[in-house]
Amino acid sequence: MNASNASVQPVEETPTTDGGDAPIVRMKDIEGMPGTRGGLALRCFQFGFAVAAFAVMAASSDFPSVSAFSYLVAAAGLQGLWSLSLAVIDIYALLVKRSLQNRPIVSFFAVGDGVTTTLTFAAACACAGITVLINNDLDLCSVNDCVQLQSATAMAFLCWFITLPSFFFNFWSLASR
Amino acid sequence: MNASNASVQPVEETPTTDGGDAPIVRMKDIEGMPGTRGGLALRCFQFGFAVAAFAVMAASSDFPSVSAFSYLVAAAGLQGLWSLSLAVIDIYALLVKRSLQNRPIVSFFAVGDGVTTTLTFAAACACAGITVLINNDLDLCSVNDCVQLQSATAMAFLCWFITLPSFFFNFWSLASR
Repeated sequence: MNASNASVQPVEETPTTDGGDAPIVRMKDIEGMPGTRGGLALRCFQFGFAVAAFAVMAASSDFPSVSAFSYLVAAAGLQGLWSLSLAVIDIYALLVKRSLQNRPIVSFFAVGDGVTTTLTFAAACACAGITVLINNDLDLCSVNDCVQLQSATAMAFLCWFITLPSFFFNFWSLASR
Repeated sequence: MNASNASVQPVEETPTTDGGDAPIVRMKDIEGMPGTRGGLALRCFQFGFAVAAFAVMAASSDFPSVSAFSYLVAAAGLQGLWSLSLAVIDIYALLVKRSLQNRPIVSFFAVGDGVTTTLTFAAACACAGITVLINNDLDLCSVNDCVQLQSATAMAFLCWFITLPSFFFNFWSLASR
């Protein structure tokens, strides 16, 4: 017997069920969590912003000479790969109508989201510091392509901002078990 | 009747008790949460690192001319004030042996910790980006006092790192109610 309630899609019997009629207390599926349509939408936006930040910064002429810009490219690349992998897992879970709400999976997603979102935020802040230095403090926008640097930084901030809900959903569902 | 268990100090009856024998389900006090000795120690370290970052950066000659450095001073100042206030509340709670584990208080602490730790981390990352630019990319340490800038940045990172447990304790106890 399955005690899952408020699930957004039918939940399959997992192989861990050890028979009998004992109800399994399972995490609730809220839109935005892994394996839901909302979660998949979040992942797609994360991937889009990460790729945009990566591409815009990698196309900039200043990128190889400034460590923070190289770091943004690396962090956005990692974030893009992570979000793409989780989007694929979400699509699989939606297609086979399988819930991803079990403790080891949610812990892994929460830690992964925490690490990638922190790295992306750190890279965005470092680039923002340098962009503000070039643009406002030193007024060197004639030499550097400020618009491109600011766009890449803004994309990285948006990517961080859209990864936060994924992280908090996972962390919350982990804590509220 | 009080249903609190594993409390580190005797928990007083709160004024919200509406009489009768109905058990009150209360959050558990874990060391590190508000109103515990561990929580007070965390607040003291946060305050110490915030004051150190504030003082070292404010004493630097580059501080007024670079936006990121001014922002670090502001963020470290705010973090210091927040941690000091919560340390005073923790001392009060320990002295009168009162538990701070109720939902509105923990929500307020979690939001405050989340905001201040994000601002401190952003300031630390922005300063780290500029310090690495000056030190490694442009090799301008002869003109700027790199050691002072790096020390202030390191203090801000330590302050962020020691605020994270406070935030996670509050968020976890909020979610696990």
